[in-house]
Amino acid sequence: MDDELLPGSMGTSASLSLRLGQTIFSSASLLFMSLGVEFYSYTAFSFLVTIMGLVIPWSFTLALVDMFSVIAGCPLRQPGILLTIVIGDSVLAILSLASACASAGVINFLLNIDGPHCVPKFCSRYQLSTAMAFLSWFLSAASSFFNLWLLPSL
Amino acid sequence: MDDELLPGSMGTSASLSLRLGQTIFSSASLLFMSLGVEFYSYTAFSFLVTIMGLVIPWSFTLALVDMFSVIAGCPLRQPGILLTIVIGDSVLAILSLASACASAGVINFLLNIDGPHCVPKFCSRYQLSTAMAFLSWFLSAASSFFNLWLLPSL
Repeated sequence: MDDELLPGSMGTSASLSLRLGQTIFSSASLLFMSLGVEFYSYTAFSFLVTIMGLVIPWSFTLALVDMFSVIAGCPLRQPGILLTIVIGDSVLAILSLASACASAGVINFLLNIDGPHCVPKFCSRYQLSTAMAFLSWFLSAASSFFNLWLLPSL
Repeated sequence: MDDELLPGSMGTSASLSLRLGQTIFSSASLLFMSLGVEFYSYTAFSFLVTIMGLVIPWSFTLALVDMFSVIAGCPLRQPGILLTIVIGDSVLAILSLASACASAGVINFLLNIDGPHCVPKFCSRYQLSTAMAFLSWFLSAASSFFNLWLLPSL
């Protein structure tokens, strides 16, 4: 069944790995940002935490759906469901990129201005979290693109 | 000839208006940011100026191509050229969104921290410039999407 499908579209093992990657990177981003760091005093970092909190359940649910499809051997082919997934993925990918870029802008600014605006230990946590958010964005965009590519053929 | 084409794809008058909108908004963003404002002391704002400086010639050239297609009545249908345009649009759209979000993050931070980090006159200029960059991103993403949608049918 896998041979007929574009690798990376819903119901293939490539899609499952993309979804697992998204879940892992967005969880890592959320944890690096929220554990023991004062993220709530910066709007950009709160935005990042909110979006990562949306990406985690979305990617995890779709990872479960993919796992079921791979094991049972029957991929999802309903255009309506696939369209919903494509739209959801695109919106989350745009929001992930937006939050990651806003955080990156603020971190860069914090590192460059004078004064005690960034404790070094905190700053490296922020940077790690933003890097994870960029990786999560990249995988979301890939998922969205592969599913969009499959859509006209249904 | 227009009836056969998806509105918004290369060679239609909708595409011409999208391109003109991109050129106008990105020029406005560049001018608001670079005239009489100290943008070069902030990395995010320099990034915005760089990207807008890339979007302006790209959109202007494609606006000229569209204008020729509309007047002459012969749209571009070569898949290779269209693919190049789709990739260029996507990359510029992602970079526009990234720079606009980074600037928005920094502006929000400048408005919230204590101390004389943002002269009110400068801050409103930064905000206007970022708003224009967001509009330019939206139109670039629309162009890219419409052309991508046309691509499989060629």
